[in-house]
Amino acid sequence: MIIVMQARATEDQVRAVERRIRDLGLRPHVSQGEFRTIIGAIGDESLMRAELFAALDGVESVMPIMKPYKLASRDFHAEDTVIDVGACKVGGGTITVVAGPCSIESREQFRETALAVRRAGAVMLRGGAYKPRTSPYSFQGLGEDGLRILQDVGREAGLPTITEVMDVRELEAVARYADVIQVGARNMQNFRLLTEIGHLEKPVLLKRNPSATIEEFLMSAEYILAEGNRQVILCERGIRGFDHSTRYTLDLSAVPNIQGVSHLPVFVDPSHATGRRELVAPMALAAVAAGAQGVMVEVHPHPEKALSDGPQQLAPDAFAVMMKELAPIAGAVGRQLQKPK
Amino acid sequence: MIIVMQARATEDQVRAVERRIRDLGLRPHVSQGEFRTIIGAIGDESLMRAELFAALDGVESVMPIMKPYKLASRDFHAEDTVIDVGACKVGGGTITVVAGPCSIESREQFRETALAVRRAGAVMLRGGAYKPRTSPYSFQGLGEDGLRILQDVGREAGLPTITEVMDVRELEAVARYADVIQVGARNMQNFRLLTEIGHLEKPVLLKRNPSATIEEFLMSAEYILAEGNRQVILCERGIRGFDHSTRYTLDLSAVPNIQGVSHLPVFVDPSHATGRRELVAPMALAAVAAGAQGVMVEVHPHPEKALSDGPQQLAPDAFAVMMKELAPIAGAVGRQLQKPK
Amino acid sequence: MIIVMQARATEDQVRAVERRIRDLGLRPHVSQGEFRTIIGAIGDESLMRAELFAALDGVESVMPIMKPYKLASRDFHAEDTVIDVGACKVGGGTITVVAGPCSIESREQFRETALAVRRAGAVMLRGGAYKPRTSPYSFQGLGEDGLRILQDVGREAGLPTITEVMDVRELEAVARYADVIQVGARNMQNFRLLTEIGHLEKPVLLKRNPSATIEEFLMSAEYILAEGNRQVILCERGIRGFDHSTRYTLDLSAVPNIQGVSHLPVFVDPSHATGRRELVAPMALAAVAAGAQGVMVEVHPHPEKALSDGPQQLAPDAFAVMMKELAPIAGAVGRQLQKPK
Amino acid sequence: MIIVMQARATEDQVRAVERRIRDLGLRPHVSQGEFRTIIGAIGDESLMRAELFAALDGVESVMPIMKPYKLASRDFHAEDTVIDVGACKVGGGTITVVAGPCSIESREQFRETALAVRRAGAVMLRGGAYKPRTSPYSFQGLGEDGLRILQDVGREAGLPTITEVMDVRELEAVARYADVIQVGARNMQNFRLLTEIGHLEKPVLLKRNPSATIEEFLMSAEYILAEGNRQVILCERGIRGFDHSTRYTLDLSAVPNIQGVSHLPVFVDPSHATGRRELVAPMALAAVAAGAQGVMVEVHPHPEKALSDGPQQLAPDAFAVMMKELAPIAGAVGRQLQKPK
Repeated sequence: MIIVMQARATEDQVRAVERRIRDLGLRPHVSQGEFRTIIGAIGDESLMRAELFAALDGVESVMPIMKPYKLASRDFHAEDTVIDVGACKVGGGTITVVAGPCSIESREQFRETALAVRRAGAVMLRGGAYKPRTSPYSFQGLGEDGLRILQDVGREAGLPTITEVMDVRELEAVARYADVIQVGARNMQNFRLLTEIGHLEKPVLLKRNPSATIEEFLMSAEYILAEGNRQVILCERGIRGFDHSTRYTLDLSAVPNIQGVSHLPVFVDPSHATGRRELVAPMALAAVAAGAQGVMVEVHPHPEKALSDGPQQLAPDAFAVMMKELAPIAGAVGRQLQKPK
Repeated sequence: MIIVMQARATEDQVRAVERRIRDLGLRPHVSQGEFRTIIGAIGDESLMRAELFAALDGVESVMPIMKPYKLASRDFHAEDTVIDVGACKVGGGTITVVAGPCSIESREQFRETALAVRRAGAVMLRGGAYKPRTSPYSFQGLGEDGLRILQDVGREAGLPTITEVMDVRELEAVARYADVIQVGARNMQNFRLLTEIGHLEKPVLLKRNPSATIEEFLMSAEYILAEGNRQVILCERGIRGFDHSTRYTLDLSAVPNIQGVSHLPVFVDPSHATGRRELVAPMALAAVAAGAQGVMVEVHPHPEKALSDGPQQLAPDAFAVMMKELAPIAGAVGRQLQKPK
Repeated sequence: MIIVMQARATEDQVRAVERRIRDLGLRPHVSQGEFRTIIGAIGDESLMRAELFAALDGVESVMPIMKPYKLASRDFHAEDTVIDVGACKVGGGTITVVAGPCSIESREQFRETALAVRRAGAVMLRGGAYKPRTSPYSFQGLGEDGLRILQDVGREAGLPTITEVMDVRELEAVARYADVIQVGARNMQNFRLLTEIGHLEKPVLLKRNPSATIEEFLMSAEYILAEGNRQVILCERGIRGFDHSTRYTLDLSAVPNIQGVSHLPVFVDPSHATGRRELVAPMALAAVAAGAQGVMVEVHPHPEKALSDGPQQLAPDAFAVMMKELAPIAGAVGRQLQKPK
Repeated sequence: MIIVMQARATEDQVRAVERRIRDLGLRPHVSQGEFRTIIGAIGDESLMRAELFAALDGVESVMPIMKPYKLASRDFHAEDTVIDVGACKVGGGTITVVAGPCSIESREQFRETALAVRRAGAVMLRGGAYKPRTSPYSFQGLGEDGLRILQDVGREAGLPTITEVMDVRELEAVARYADVIQVGARNMQNFRLLTEIGHLEKPVLLKRNPSATIEEFLMSAEYILAEGNRQVILCERGIRGFDHSTRYTLDLSAVPNIQGVSHLPVFVDPSHATGRRELVAPMALAAVAAGAQGVMVEVHPHPEKALSDGPQQLAPDAFAVMMKELAPIAGAVGRQLQKPK
């Protein structure tokens, strides 16, 4: 950590910073510049927090040198993490296509979708049972009935399943019925939920909150990893932007950006990011070209009748077209598209 | 709701929209412009969701006419809501100053702060027992021990108390010990938690999420109101911005903006918004000048030793200076600064 | 245009709106809903401005139905615009790769780069002579000397050239020496400059301002088109975001989003958007997968010695690798990579 | 400047950084931490640019210690700058209220406004002659005729005047007719224009671009200061935000934030920031409470007939009410409201 003193900082203020560094078990290293005194703290930076110094008199700014996450970092784990989800390998040089409806509305609707997306080449099945809705007056999902449908249809289609958990009290049920637990964007900093998930031995897909920096995103992954669960998939799904012709702004550079600092697999969800059906396929293709290790796409047999997110769900035909274009792009970037068994 | 058809929309597509409007129990009203066909849906808009139409073929855009919230709206409840918290009236023409440390660190630290802020004129006491921290390696709060200190010290100082709840499982305890339950910015869309709080008869302070629009913020309030709990205080605490010389960007125009559409009291937290001690007082004064009905400020007897948020906590002296400047500003905008009993 | 009246709007206020619509030569169409009166204005919306109504008493909101741009719109010109730049066709189903250094630093440096990028497959040559720099103390470009080098080297390499104009007084010189005039992001709303460029018969590449909505971007294109110059290329180069691990946030969904409403070619500049060399190639590939009709990439023979933007310039080898990966992606989305003559 | 090397940086890469520091005439200072090598460059940081190091192999990040601006900095000029504009003192402990219509539409309209705002207590008169409009089809201002009206009416009302310049070619005329030259938000990084204004001896009001950081804003001021013109007033007018219920997001914490690092006067324009009449007065009051040294407010005798920005212009009555509330707030923060002669 580097502590930059104000131009007018006194000797005593410099001493106080040195003392605090020593109190934390580190070694101070003072460097007197022409305009500023700069103090380095040498040792294990994880023992310090920037705010411990920023609050001292005479300090202008504090610059951490190390990333605040460890287990999520490539420094800690150089090789790409690869996670087994059923027969599917997630991460590394593979590409996983997850598809399914926004909400599980009925056994028929979900079954029809599952068979269609499998036919088109999806290897994992998504479907919401507990739905986080902005409005208390909107459809809130089928709950545990939905989970049962998810599991049954997943088995029938031979596809592992993923669904969102919204509350610690539902975690046990979600973990029982689904193969991958999804933490939604709004719960990315629900730290209690992250901690509980960390105690499980179950793959998790963690979505980025629309206002989270990449560092905050990785710190939330760290909450799960720190409890022992190392099967974390990260998913970019759009950040809050100022142009409302799309629902969110898909931050695709986050893909190679995260992959540079972390070993965890990175997925992209173009459906929630754009909120517009006609933008989903171009963004799914772009995600794979950018190096994403998975895409998660909403597909509904009759989007115009969907109980939620109709405008952004692809019809099965459109999804099949997208899958055809995806394959050569995966090849072009040296990745292997996972195939259904 | 207004549905705008694409320039090339067919007769059949227009019919399909009309049919869906009728299916929902509303009346369609087609208006053939020179360039576009426009269809109004007349009746109770709350029966419709924009996405039910946006997913139909030939539809270019859907424009809601009504706000999606009701109980939070001034259309529903024209008068300002005033909430009794102990002897303190929150909302309407009053100004409530809440102060206290970021975290309750010990009985002594909290007691010292409580007495100091009361002396300076604060009428409510804040202090975190459960702390949402970006890093799993940071101090996470004293938990239920902290709640007990909160209650004891609040009684001793004669000030009602407020503290944050992070998890449904802690809600009962928080509601037992504190006078106002705080929902933090990261939990603004933790819909399960909001629903549970809605079942209580207890004042709630709901913080705005850094990426939430004002409409989304009011929809989260609606979750609580819809369950029966009408004692909701809104709190602006900074939105995510692009200039990182402050922690967040305090959106002060949200104060009169929300007050125009909602009857709920609006508070401002300048400490979390700016993250910098020297900006807290100017922003607290500005908040009151803008019409805020309360400010919530972090005060610590020794900010340089704080276990969390040191750089943004005021020392008791600085808080007392701020209180002196606040009084004439309250008067200038025709508001009454609540006084401790 | 749809004018929504406030719930408490009076008859007189409704009349005043109707009168103003008629004064503008349009026809009002009043629709009395259950909760709101809504007034449509039928006729040529370009005769109206929303603000003419928003300022009237009793008006709650005004919703334009038509896009505010015409010449830039696909409604006006359904087919993709294709622009001839030397032998190069820009737009439609083609992909144009533009490359070259951030700044022209010397004849040798520019010549070396030009030959290298041509060898790797670039079909247009970029290089800055007038440089917009945040700091007055930074290298400001070689000016007209740079323009001469641009022209000479472009001819020698057999590549058309593009360079930025910063001021109306330099426009004549830039237009004389270069094949395409670039308007930088900071000048996207320099309306005087846009108007002057509109009088020329010369292709223009207009970069999106970091805080411009897509509608504002197209309105700036409209300034050029309205003066008669129809050879406008649009270029996404990153919007202002909150995560500063990249310089800007590349908004790739802008590509299909713009292509849906406009016939103009859309390019992407991943170098300025990310500011980091290792993210340039992934984002260039993603741009083409998303449907971009061109990419503009900074290449420098010795990035570590560059006088500007060193960290984001590719070395010629890295550019050649990128070009190899680009070709199959272009094919996968049915586009044709332009080849140097 | 601090250069942080990558964990895996080689000895040779460290040497290369040291060499470059020496080449620039500075002194390297290597500090070997447990996890990273860190190199300080001691000496005049203005001789270096971060990008010169960021482009070197093995470098992880570069952290500047000094601000990149000098003349705008309080380090250079500790006392508040006070600028004489006619009898009006701008900056320091004074508050300057500037008012007038968005556009000068006619001599009568401007005269009526001028007399009304003077009566209510404004000490400076604004009015646009050259209007930057998003659409080429909107009213573009009266041009030089407008400038003549500005000067005549200003003299008659006894108020100094301010108007915007959009183009270097109009600069001479604007400087001749007006007392203060305004650089609009869209031209904040029109570096040629800034440089030309730097050659004049005339006060300038520089507006912040909606996507500019505070550092970028001060760098633009530096362009003017560096040419010799030291009479620069800064004006916050809203940054680009994600909630479109206001036109922009007014960043009021920018006021004390800038005042902490710069000696230049800081104004606030609540009219353009909010775009909504009912939010203008609360935000003007808040600006003064936050420490702004001036507010600039749009006033129109008949806002509902304005040729531009009708929805955000105050009627003279509303402006007079605002002025009455402003005075005690100025007093509360120890500032002196300038009075018309």
